[in-house]
Amino acid sequence: MTNVLFLKNVLVVSLAMNMGLIWKISLDDEQALTSKWSIHQNLHFYAHKNNLIQQEEEARVSKRAPTTSSGAATDGLESVVINLDHGDPTMYEGFWKQKGEETTVVTSSWQHISYFSDIKNVCWFLEPVLVSAITRLHKVVGNAVTEGRHIVVGTGSSQLYQAALYALSPPNGSGPMNVVSAAPFYSSYPLMTDYLKSGLHKWAGDAYKFNKEQPYIELVTSPNNPDGFTRQDVVKGDKGILIHDLAYYWPQYTPILLPAVYDIMLFTVSKSTGHAGSRIGWAVVKDREIAKKMTTFIEINTIGVSKDSQTRAAKILQAVSENQKEAESFFDYSYKLMAERWRKIREAVNKTELFSLPSFPAETCSFSGQTFGQLPAFAWLKCEGEVDDCEGFLRRHKILTRGGKHFGACMKYVRISMLSRENEFKLLTDRLPAIIS
Amino acid sequence: MTNVLFLKNVLVVSLAMNMGLIWKISLDDEQALTSKWSIHQNLHFYAHKNNLIQQEEEARVSKRAPTTSSGAATDGLESVVINLDHGDPTMYEGFWKQKGEETTVVTSSWQHISYFSDIKNVCWFLEPVLVSAITRLHKVVGNAVTEGRHIVVGTGSSQLYQAALYALSPPNGSGPMNVVSAAPFYSSYPLMTDYLKSGLHKWAGDAYKFNKEQPYIELVTSPNNPDGFTRQDVVKGDKGILIHDLAYYWPQYTPILLPAVYDIMLFTVSKSTGHAGSRIGWAVVKDREIAKKMTTFIEINTIGVSKDSQTRAAKILQAVSENQKEAESFFDYSYKLMAERWRKIREAVNKTELFSLPSFPAETCSFSGQTFGQLPAFAWLKCEGEVDDCEGFLRRHKILTRGGKHFGACMKYVRISMLSRENEFKLLTDRLPAIIS
Repeated sequence: MTNVLFLKNVLVVSLAMNMGLIWKISLDDEQALTSKWSIHQNLHFYAHKNNLIQQEEEARVSKRAPTTSSGAATDGLESVVINLDHGDPTMYEGFWKQKGEETTVVTSSWQHISYFSDIKNVCWFLEPVLVSAITRLHKVVGNAVTEGRHIVVGTGSSQLYQAALYALSPPNGSGPMNVVSAAPFYSSYPLMTDYLKSGLHKWAGDAYKFNKEQPYIELVTSPNNPDGFTRQDVVKGDKGILIHDLAYYWPQYTPILLPAVYDIMLFTVSKSTGHAGSRIGWAVVKDREIAKKMTTFIEINTIGVSKDSQTRAAKILQAVSENQKEAESFFDYSYKLMAERWRKIREAVNKTELFSLPSFPAETCSFSGQTFGQLPAFAWLKCEGEVDDCEGFLRRHKILTRGGKHFGACMKYVRISMLSRENEFKLLTDRLPAIIS
Repeated sequence: MTNVLFLKNVLVVSLAMNMGLIWKISLDDEQALTSKWSIHQNLHFYAHKNNLIQQEEEARVSKRAPTTSSGAATDGLESVVINLDHGDPTMYEGFWKQKGEETTVVTSSWQHISYFSDIKNVCWFLEPVLVSAITRLHKVVGNAVTEGRHIVVGTGSSQLYQAALYALSPPNGSGPMNVVSAAPFYSSYPLMTDYLKSGLHKWAGDAYKFNKEQPYIELVTSPNNPDGFTRQDVVKGDKGILIHDLAYYWPQYTPILLPAVYDIMLFTVSKSTGHAGSRIGWAVVKDREIAKKMTTFIEINTIGVSKDSQTRAAKILQAVSENQKEAESFFDYSYKLMAERWRKIREAVNKTELFSLPSFPAETCSFSGQTFGQLPAFAWLKCEGEVDDCEGFLRRHKILTRGGKHFGACMKYVRISMLSRENEFKLLTDRLPAIIS
């Protein structure tokens, strides 16, 4: 019994120290929380929840509550808030901590002074080592064709999404270009399309409902964020241009079936290797003029992309390609971990009548040879029965998720990150079956 | 004579290898060049000139001309194109090459996985080490007050400029907010304000000519880009909000007189320490709500800022603060180099009647104790006499500069970077006095 208590305390202290991602807060007034929540509704989602947590933390501190760690140790696990709202890929830290110097980057102070990387490239701020690493990895994995195409690097794939909108929207069109995506769609798309009230493009909502005889851009996210399904374009109009967001088209999340060959394909290290803090994404672009315009957007927006991060991403992608030969490669490790987590969350959900999860047909991955159904980076959880606000319901059980309305869906659904650190994931799978309606 | 030829060849080969910044091109047809130039007039300026050079390079290669290096070696220095269009701060490489491990950054692959840096900070993606380094350096130099203010980090100060516009423009205003700056103004301001045809803000041109009874944002760049003068706001209306771009308010460019205490102040490592390729800028912001909105812009735009670059910038800024005690500090070195370059360019310009440069009154720098006039990062050169297109005139002598019209001024002026590598700068000061009308 003492041992169990000791372990419990150690776990709690470790959780509390966990880079600010888990917060112990005492929710004196659930109503107050809900009302604060709605005030912030129009803010961007990340800021929104962080601010909320921060305000609660400040309120708690001002009430002279015990500090996070000792408070947690006293009160136990049930009052720990689990924040799985955002897809912060901290799950991957475990793999990279095993790696040694072959993935360490050393940068001297005289390096990366110039704005320029390769003046002959359409994307003049793209480091040649990153091009090599990207094309090699796509070849090794077999998830995208890069031959004869242009790579454009971005400060994460968010910037590349905006660059693609800029490149595809005519500068002198009769009105802003319609931008659509099939619901449920990634919650940031509407925000990124409309936050500047651009005259070039505007969010036109769910692609299934789009029936205007006007030009449009359709975002196809496959596997989809939030629900993990493989997707095709749905409007099928003759005035459409497609952007394929393939952030999750990697073998830890989905069976790789064919190398993708779309006109504009977006990828990011955040979801492939987990290095979200580096802010490196890339687009594989067929048309040179589109690649040039995307480059122009990034020039005006941020005059290029961090060379420090490009060099580091190159080393890491290179290591992923190379360690395919090793006993446990990056994709072996992450596939096994995702499969294990999906087994555990399905087990947890099956213990209760309250929730359900999507099912995926099994297919054989051309890369790993494994046969499996999707193992999405997010669980698209449905509250069954009479619960209409699943986000609010889970919040009362101190699980922070992102509700369906942000994805153009109903509030019976929430998106839950599957990419957290192990201890947070364990808290989730312990808590879900313990919830009573 | 043989020695001279040998040295000349070595110099030319080294120039040709110079990271693509100097290009040897044979300009068979000056007319063709001019017409290509105007076709590209609406593209962003960096892309514009790079594309131009690239097209010429391709044209040259397709004519089976000799390769750049051997071609240059054959033809001599007078045909080498000197590209001083952009303010690429390669001048600083020399200083940083002397530095050893104390400024080298080592990053393991498990670091910087998470999106988050400090969830309690208004700017949640700002690395705490960077905050310390920034506030310390401002204290050491005495160029800005940071106490009681918020730091927001950006992917260069360009992103922060856009973040400030977003934060200062009312989301539901009756029309887009007017954005002005006194001519000559930084050529990227109009582009960054208008490239997305935002409904939030629009470029309203020269602040001296702004006379609407409407709200406005005035950009005050001091010392100014392109001309180097110290500036104050000029509209002085009661509906104005100011953004101070203080990228050049460092003691190598201008005597520091007082710590700046404006509401929104923008800085960047590109121009302070020269690390343009890292894309790190910061804003010092008085109002918490403005800092939050700027943070929201960066969240939506790029979901934060490279942690790799933030960590590196922190180490470099820290080293600059610390090495103030050493025999030759960073600011000693760079002040001496700028003073020397300005002496040389004035000497070169004084040898001819064709050009003139601005004069600056001497003042005493509170940081260094030196008394000197501005030593701007750009020379704002005027073509005297009958030359009305100074950019075109210099281009015919294979000196690429940025013409006055891009800065809201007349084409008798050009902006020339003073921050190039030494060999490029020497070519410039050798060539200018040799030009015959």
